[in-house]
This record gives sequence, C-alpha cells and structure tokens, in this order.
Amino acid sequence: MALIVQKYGGTSVGSVERIEHVADKVLRAREAGHRLVVVVSAMAGETNRLLELARAIQPRPDPRELDVLLATGEQVTIALLCMALGKRGCPARSYTGAQVQIVTDSAHTKARIRRIDDERIRRDLAEGRVVVVAGFQGVDENGNITTLGRGGSDTTAVALAAALRADECQIYTDVDGVYTTDPRIEPKARRLDRITFEEMLEMASLGSKVLQIRSVEFAGKYRVPLRVLSTFQDGPGTLITFEEDEEVEAAQISGIAFNRDEAQLTVTGVPDRPGIAAAILGPIAEANIEVDMIVQNIGADGNSTDFTFTVHRNDYERALDILRGVAERLGAREVRGDTGIVKLSLVGVGMRSHAGIASRMFAALAAENINIRMISTSEIKISVVIDEKYLELGVRALHAAFGLDRAPGAAGGAPA
Amino acid sequence: MALIVQKYGGTSVGSVERIEHVADKVLRAREAGHRLVVVVSAMAGETNRLLELARAIQPRPDPRELDVLLATGEQVTIALLCMALGKRGCPARSYTGAQVQIVTDSAHTKARIRRIDDERIRRDLAEGRVVVVAGFQGVDENGNITTLGRGGSDTTAVALAAALRADECQIYTDVDGVYTTDPRIEPKARRLDRITFEEMLEMASLGSKVLQIRSVEFAGKYRVPLRVLSTFQDGPGTLITFEEDEEVEAAQISGIAFNRDEAQLTVTGVPDRPGIAAAILGPIAEANIEVDMIVQNIGADGNSTDFTFTVHRNDYERALDILRGVAERLGAREVRGDTGIVKLSLVGVGMRSHAGIASRMFAALAAENINIRMISTSEIKISVVIDEKYLELGVRALHAAFGLDRAPGAAGGAPA
Repeated sequence: MALIVQKYGGTSVGSVERIEHVADKVLRAREAGHRLVVVVSAMAGETNRLLELARAIQPRPDPRELDVLLATGEQVTIALLCMALGKRGCPARSYTGAQVQIVTDSAHTKARIRRIDDERIRRDLAEGRVVVVAGFQGVDENGNITTLGRGGSDTTAVALAAALRADECQIYTDVDGVYTTDPRIEPKARRLDRITFEEMLEMASLGSKVLQIRSVEFAGKYRVPLRVLSTFQDGPGTLITFEEDEEVEAAQISGIAFNRDEAQLTVTGVPDRPGIAAAILGPIAEANIEVDMIVQNIGADGNSTDFTFTVHRNDYERALDILRGVAERLGAREVRGDTGIVKLSLVGVGMRSHAGIASRMFAALAAENINIRMISTSEIKISVVIDEKYLELGVRALHAAFGLDRAPGAAGGAPA
Repeated sequence: MALIVQKYGGTSVGSVERIEHVADKVLRAREAGHRLVVVVSAMAGETNRLLELARAIQPRPDPRELDVLLATGEQVTIALLCMALGKRGCPARSYTGAQVQIVTDSAHTKARIRRIDDERIRRDLAEGRVVVVAGFQGVDENGNITTLGRGGSDTTAVALAAALRADECQIYTDVDGVYTTDPRIEPKARRLDRITFEEMLEMASLGSKVLQIRSVEFAGKYRVPLRVLSTFQDGPGTLITFEEDEEVEAAQISGIAFNRDEAQLTVTGVPDRPGIAAAILGPIAEANIEVDMIVQNIGADGNSTDFTFTVHRNDYERALDILRGVAERLGAREVRGDTGIVKLSLVGVGMRSHAGIASRMFAALAAENINIRMISTSEIKISVVIDEKYLELGVRALHAAFGLDRAPGAAGGAPA
C-alpha cells in the first residue's frame, strides 16, 4: 500500500466532466490499495478570468491582493473534486494552502515554500480519506495568502510528497510521458519509461514543456520520485529517477531537445585582448538580457576574435542595438545577427562514459548536409546551433543515428 | 472621528465599475475623518454560478465542500475592492472570514458566529488602513471554512460592528432607506429617517425585504445602531434606533407592510370541544408547514366552531390535503381555502400609548368597502387579511388615513 501524491493541472480539471473523470482516476488508484493526496490547479481559464478582473482595476495589481484573488481558483477545484469523490462514496476532504498549512515566505506572487504541516493530512489519511489540496498557494508566517508563481501546483505536489515521504509524486498532464523528442517533429519518437533527474532538467531547460523546471529541481533536491502521466489516456508514463541504472546507461542518449526561441548575435573582428568577453557581455547583462550559448573563435585574420552568443528572440532587437554601440567603442569590424536559427541538443547520462557521442552527432548532421554554426557541451548534453530550416531534418537524423525509436529493454511500470 | 462598518451587497459590487464606485464611496467616508471596516458580498451572479457547478456534480452538495466553494465568491470581491482602494492611494487590506478570525459553530451552510478576533483589524485601523472583510463566511474551531447562510453578509457586518463597538453599521443596498410602505404601490410613500428595532423587525417579518430579519435581530441583541442607505444615490438613509424618542412616538404609525405570499384555510362546523385547535394544527405542524395568523370563531349555528389560519402559498395544497383528512376525523362540516388573499399590517411603536388606532384602521378600510376577513394584533402591529384585489386600495387608504406622506418633524442625518 503506497502513499501517492497525484497532481492534476488546469486542463485536467477544466470542466465539471473532467473533474468527474479525475475523480474516477483517483478512485481507481484508491481501489488498488493506495493512500492518496491529490493536488489540483485552478480550472483552465479561471486564472486568466481573475487576472482580467484585477487588471481592469489595476494594471499592476497589488501583489498581496492579487494572491487573495488568484487563490480562489484552486479553492473552487478542491471543493468540486471532493464533491465528485463524495458522490462516488469515497470519503474526501479539501484543504486550501492556508488550511494545510503550506507555510511560505512573504514574496507575494512568487513565494517559496518554507515548511509544511502534515499533521491534518496524516490524520485524514489514517482515517481512510482522500486528501485534496489546493496547488499553487500557501500562507506566510503572518497568515497572509501567498501564491507560488508559474508551475506552482507542481511545486506544491512535490513539496507535499517530500513532506509526507510519499512513495511517488505523479504529475498528470495532457501528454502521456517524456518522449525521446517531440512526436510532432519525429513520429517515431518513443515514450521513455525512465529518465534521470539530470536529464529531465536538461530536457526541461531546453524547451521540453512537460514539467516546470522549478518543480523538477525541487523533486531532485528532496529526492522525490516523480512520474509524468496523461490524465486522458491510461499508461505507465515516465518515471524520473535518481538511479542511473544499467537500463538507463545502456541507452546512452535519452532524448533530443530543441529550442526555437533563440537568436544568434556575432561581433566579428574584435581586437583580441583580455577582458573582451566582459566588455561585450557586460552591457547585455546590465540590460537584463539572458545569454544562453557563448562561443569565441579566432577571427579570420588571425589576430582578432569573432564573438558569438545567443539570446531569446524577444530580446534580439534590444541586444542588437546594445551590441552596435559596444562594437563601435571596441573598434570591432562588424555586428551580425540571425533569428533564423534553432538549437538542437542531445541529452543523456550515458554520454559520461561513452566516447564518440559528439563525433557521431556531427557525422549524422553532416550526412544530411546540415551546417553547424555553434557547438556547446556539458557533461550530459551536446548542443548545436543550426539553420532553422533544418530543424526537422536534424531531429530525425539524430533520432535515427542514436536508435531512439528502439526501446532499450524492459520498462518499469507505474505503481498506480 | 467615528468607527463605521459599511456593508455592500452583491448588486453593489456586481461589476468592476461598481466596485470602483464603492471604492469612491469608502474614500469619501474616510476623507470625512472616519475609520472604516467594509464588508462585501460576492459579486452578483457569482454565488449562483458556483452553486450550478456544484449541483452539476452533486444535486445535494456536501455541506463542508459547498462552504469551501461558496467562500471563494466574497474572497474575489475583497481583493478587487482593495485593489480599487489602492489605486486611489488609500491603504487597504483584505481579510477572509478565516483570516479575521470570525469563529462560528460547525453547522456548514448555516453557521452561527461564536466570536470574532478583532486584534488584526484594530491594528490595521490604528495604522490608518481601511479593512475589507469577506461577508457571509467564517471558520469553525477546527479551521474548516463555514458560511452563514442567506443574508450572511449583513450578519457579518453587524457582528463586526458589535465586536469593534462601532459607532454605526451602514448597510448599503439598492434602496435608499426604509419606506412607510412600498413606493410601487403608494407613490406618496415616504422614506423614514428613523425607525425603532421592534418596528423594523415587524416590517422585515412582514415582507419588507430591505434587511434580513436575522441581522436585524442580531443588531438588536448587541445594540448596534444600523443604517440602511443606497449604494447608488446619496442620502442619509434610515437609521434603526433603540430609543423610542418623542419624534418617533409622535408618528404613532411608522409604516404599512403587506404580504402576498399567504393563503387562507378554514374548517367550518368543527364540534366545539377542548383540544380542537391542537387536533387541527398538530398534523400541519408535523408536516413542517408554518402557520402565521390563527383565528377561531363561534360558528353560524352557535354550537360549533369555525377555525381559520394562514400558511405560505407554497404549502397551500399540502395543507389543504392534510386538513381534509383532519376534518373528516373530527366530523367538521367543510374545508375551504383561498389563495386570493393578502395580509396588510400597520406597524408602529406609537400604537402602545394611543387608543383608537385599530378603529381608525377599520374605518378607513370600510370607507373603501374593503371587507376584513381576519384580524390579528400584537403590541406594535395590527394585521388584517383582505381580498388580494384590494391590496393597492387598502395600502393607499391606510397611508392617507394615518398621514404617512407627511414627515413627523426634523430628521437625523447620517454621520457619513
């Protein structure tokens, strides 16, 4: 008999019918013998409706009052889900963040959880109840209602699972797991039975939108086993583990992530002297523009340098303006920019112990005549920047080259 | 500098525009030097929207979870009103019932207030803030969210005024005060500057829908001065006082109430013996039907009795069925019923010390050829049942006969 924390997002509870469906799923897990804590988000659309009301009054609403307002969204869902469970003869009890208590700091709209009082939840579980908790919200030390910001319901679920030492934290979403790559790009993409936390973090940060990166970090920190599953179709989903077991290792590469949101900026002919990187990136950082990949090369003439980096496309125009000023001051030759690029990344813990992954990657791209503009590596990831038009071709080439369409062996099933 | 509790109902906060209007009113009272606690209801329509969601899942929703659900309605309003005040440069802070704490018993959906912790509110007031409190809701000793049932926001306002020993509790609504009678029936109806609590209770129980009777009782019990005012037009409203001052006394009669919701039932030719009333009304009471007026007369033949009473029209058919069975068992002659009746009542504390009110009333009705079917009196009220078709004529005749269109002297103004 496992203790499981399940989390259902806004789409999963987006209507009365869907809430009934979630109740059926909860009941099934309960009938399988598990004890259950269920975390829910506001019904899809509700948070935006509330935000619109607020903004009609105050374009930048008071953060304390905004939290009071937004917290009602999840409060509606917990009550409705408990009714749906009650109708099915399943004893259930709802709790707001303040009732639990999920105690946070006082940073309204982006509060961080400090501690969770699990006493009432444990008592309810012992008495055979399903406990339904409002995600995304908490209460500060002075009793003020707080919210956790984007992806907050995932964080609530993971934090509850950590506090209760749950056997598993299941995140129900509209996809049935983590895939080797986006199935819309490569139809042969395969659902992974398992992935390590490090890989998941890389996948999440590279634009794989299955889980909010903050909740993955949180789960990693507290060593909570996470599972991603679909609300709408049955299946074991993907388990995010801590163990780099043989099975995972055998795979070498877990998946291919990509990011279409970046733009490339290059300053050519920069006089090559110490401090050049800081002189170029300092003004960019001061403008609060985040830089992702950075590459510095010897320039064509041998005594100057070409300096290239990527930023989010939304920051492209601003970065270009700043860079033109910088280039002039430094006596650089030219500033070039390109928004028609994409970043492609191979992710896998297997990379650590296997040489030759990079060369196999470059060869696969070369075989399709895809030119590589930038390269950047980390311990479990290799990223390249290529022309945007080669995105699909590149993903499929790498997917095939690393045999990602073939399962690496027997897969672990979900306990639910 | 007075401490005032203001209460705005669902219609008064029914849209963003109306919430902004309420903020303007609050601000004006603040600029007049008052300290303010504002109690608000859910935006008009919101409670029904939530109820529909609940009933789509459970026709009779679990009461604990229904309270969790409904309490979100007022929580939305407090946040929005605080934003509107903040936008106007007025420091404000919102509190849910649980945050205050408004501690109630655990009777979900109809909880009663046990005590109020006024510490946080007093601190905010001392720091110059307007305090905005969610009406209708509280929290039980175990931290469960409760609601107070119909008219609950009025009760919250009165209870807060009592706990804070406020100088006045102002109930803002869509009428500008209590009238001598319904202005839709008698255009000469006049707003009363003052009315006593006893009179207000009679008016409320007789179908004058300005205030919920429970909150009037509550205000009377804790001696909270109540004032009824309009949200949408300026004016002093009507003050509900404890003092039967000379001014009130001089008026004799404060108003004319009427009730169209009753139906009349008569059993004729009942053998006249002790216990007859109990034998007739016992089965009615057992069926949970409330009886209002009761009259017993000697029958036409001199040795039997005619027994007449009124019930709510919704209970009429049921009561008629029960009565037919009772009449047969008792050997009564006949059961008659009539839904085409109306109850008309004169209300006024002046009645106590002035003889001849009743005869003046009967004479005024007789002058219009209006037949009186039943009469019932209390210390500050005389009620008659007449044919429904004479309602307007009767109201106008009495309004004129008692000079209600003329003000009884100087009137007290509102402090706000």
